[in-house]
Amino acid sequence: MTTLAPYAIQTYERCDVLAHFSQDPDCINRQYLTPEHLQANRQVAQWMEQAGMETWQDAAANQWGRYPSKAPNAKTLVIGSHLDTVPNSGKYDGILGVLAPLSLIHYLHDHHIELPFHLELVGFGDEEGTRFGATLLGSCAVAGTWQDKWNDLADENGITLRQAFIDAGLDISEVKNASRLATNVDDFFEFHIEQGPVLEQNDLAVGVVNGIAGAKRFSITLKGLAGHAGTVPMPMRQDALAAASEMILAIERLATQNGIVATVGHLKCLSGAVNVISGATTFSLDIRSIDDALRDETLKLIIDELKGIAETRRIQMDITPTHQAPAVKCDENLQQQLLDAFEATDTPPFTLASGAGHDTMAMAAVCPVAMMFMRCEKGLSHHPAEAIEVADIEAALNVMFAFLKEYV
Amino acid sequence: MTTLAPYAIQTYERCDVLAHFSQDPDCINRQYLTPEHLQANRQVAQWMEQAGMETWQDAAANQWGRYPSKAPNAKTLVIGSHLDTVPNSGKYDGILGVLAPLSLIHYLHDHHIELPFHLELVGFGDEEGTRFGATLLGSCAVAGTWQDKWNDLADENGITLRQAFIDAGLDISEVKNASRLATNVDDFFEFHIEQGPVLEQNDLAVGVVNGIAGAKRFSITLKGLAGHAGTVPMPMRQDALAAASEMILAIERLATQNGIVATVGHLKCLSGAVNVISGATTFSLDIRSIDDALRDETLKLIIDELKGIAETRRIQMDITPTHQAPAVKCDENLQQQLLDAFEATDTPPFTLASGAGHDTMAMAAVCPVAMMFMRCEKGLSHHPAEAIEVADIEAALNVMFAFLKEYV
Repeated sequence: MTTLAPYAIQTYERCDVLAHFSQDPDCINRQYLTPEHLQANRQVAQWMEQAGMETWQDAAANQWGRYPSKAPNAKTLVIGSHLDTVPNSGKYDGILGVLAPLSLIHYLHDHHIELPFHLELVGFGDEEGTRFGATLLGSCAVAGTWQDKWNDLADENGITLRQAFIDAGLDISEVKNASRLATNVDDFFEFHIEQGPVLEQNDLAVGVVNGIAGAKRFSITLKGLAGHAGTVPMPMRQDALAAASEMILAIERLATQNGIVATVGHLKCLSGAVNVISGATTFSLDIRSIDDALRDETLKLIIDELKGIAETRRIQMDITPTHQAPAVKCDENLQQQLLDAFEATDTPPFTLASGAGHDTMAMAAVCPVAMMFMRCEKGLSHHPAEAIEVADIEAALNVMFAFLKEYV
Repeated sequence: MTTLAPYAIQTYERCDVLAHFSQDPDCINRQYLTPEHLQANRQVAQWMEQAGMETWQDAAANQWGRYPSKAPNAKTLVIGSHLDTVPNSGKYDGILGVLAPLSLIHYLHDHHIELPFHLELVGFGDEEGTRFGATLLGSCAVAGTWQDKWNDLADENGITLRQAFIDAGLDISEVKNASRLATNVDDFFEFHIEQGPVLEQNDLAVGVVNGIAGAKRFSITLKGLAGHAGTVPMPMRQDALAAASEMILAIERLATQNGIVATVGHLKCLSGAVNVISGATTFSLDIRSIDDALRDETLKLIIDELKGIAETRRIQMDITPTHQAPAVKCDENLQQQLLDAFEATDTPPFTLASGAGHDTMAMAAVCPVAMMFMRCEKGLSHHPAEAIEVADIEAALNVMFAFLKEYV
């Protein structure tokens, strides 16, 4: 077995370096098309060149590198993840999936190892969707699924996506040139921290992802009747916050009973105060499953129960869908090749689903896709306390190297 | 029976006039010591003078008028309510309790009716507490219970109460001069819209108040663990918003079972997002009863149940008291005199409690107190849709006139 240990350390240290490219001096915050995003792209390009790769930034500000095969008609495998972060982020979500494969290619280059296929590495510019509200902008551009209606989305400073392209020296009318749909991309592989506690609980460094849960999201608004906290007897109230509370517990119970996840992560009181009964409230619902049918069955049970609660409490309810993405299955053949690589490296084989969305979802429109997860401490992500182990990176590099050696 | 109908119309129309003294052009908003508050005082003073009263503004910007008796050693009855409003207020909360008695005195003056006691009318400058956070500033000044620590309270623009006094041409070091504690005030009577639905549901114009509920308020903060909405299985979550929801329903249930009112009128998610499990949340609790002991028994049951919920859900809970006021009983003798006035005017006798706080609570430190409520549409208050009927004002004026005729 080769020793990829120095390359694992390189990956780990480069994650620290990239964390400094932040639009906020107090935390990691690197959003799409900001100066810091473009600086990070140039840093990654420099590392790619040191690893013997040809580099370019595409029309959507995704950073690419190519480690070409001598055989011009060889297959093309694309590996990638994203370089943007949420505000107050950790150092690894997305980033690790660019920098770990980059270090592996650096190893190949250092050891003059040629591959019988073209290997490309991409750092997508937007996956999180923090700046403009729509997610996966970078990978959708590559997948050829960019939507022109996004061009008018504005960030919190009122800067439109169109203007942000100009500010970044790009032209949004050329974004379609970023599409790899009509090019020879044969497979896509993404490496990512798990962002959940399953690998850690099973004492495993890495696992093969069998699919990405489909999500539906809703904004639910309740209208009751505001009233004085002291003067309206309890039975006469139409309390929007109490109704929302009953609904949140119903959502939690039904999701648990059906073995899926459903989350009310945000609630806002639209009226009410310490001494005023809540007259209106709004909350989010996010519901996910690797099994679209099971998710939709559970959703129906939830909505039926919410309607009953609203009726009993004389509350007007409005449910607006805000997002939906079907589940994405990872390619069976690629999953098997990954499991073979686990076996070849004496890594305990383990398969798990992804509850989080990833660039892989967008890339599924282009070609067969595969993913591998790595353990992260306490399953924490989107948080400065995000943490990983160098030993786990080394284990992951070994599996990826074994995968590349046998990739067909 | 006299016809007070024109004076009821006068009251109604003056409520419309006073609504124009607003610091906000789009709604009624008249806060303590603003230019609009002082303008409203001058308008009310002018009306008082037209009603034959001596007028003055006291050291705390409360507006006073005196309809003196010929007998210099006669008793003094003070009638009053407040002239300030919450933002986006209605026209009647507080205001009606100044302008209706004012029109009744106007009637007395027009008809050369003298009283065997000094009658004073006060429009308190602050009851709502909207500007500086502490309530009843005007009536506490009159009651001699002003607290010097209030002087440093600041409004949302950073203007301290001390500075607001200067801006209003006043000197906060003289606020103690507004106290009527050492003067001959024999009784205090307040007239106010009910701010609740009880009179309307009983098809009654007015009712005698037997007491004002004591309130306790708390700020409750929950800390769980933020996490990804897709990756953390339901049983592993420490969801602060779900915990808050279970607590809100427990509060609602226990208050209902014990026949008191408890309200969670505001909740704020301190972390969380549509795709992030809520890691921390904070909500308010307001609990009231005319019976302090029953309120405290119920509060103990609530806190015990909240602790159990927090423990089961592995949530850290912090409960901070933010306010407490004991219940205030209205004077039995004055209540009886009011009920006699109901009988004398063929008004159905009806007694109810006040769940809301009023200037009467502060004035109870000075002398025996009494209150009368008038029906308001749907029990609505603190809202532009606050509505009353002229016929109800006339009924109230008739009762008040009968009360004054027999007051001893």
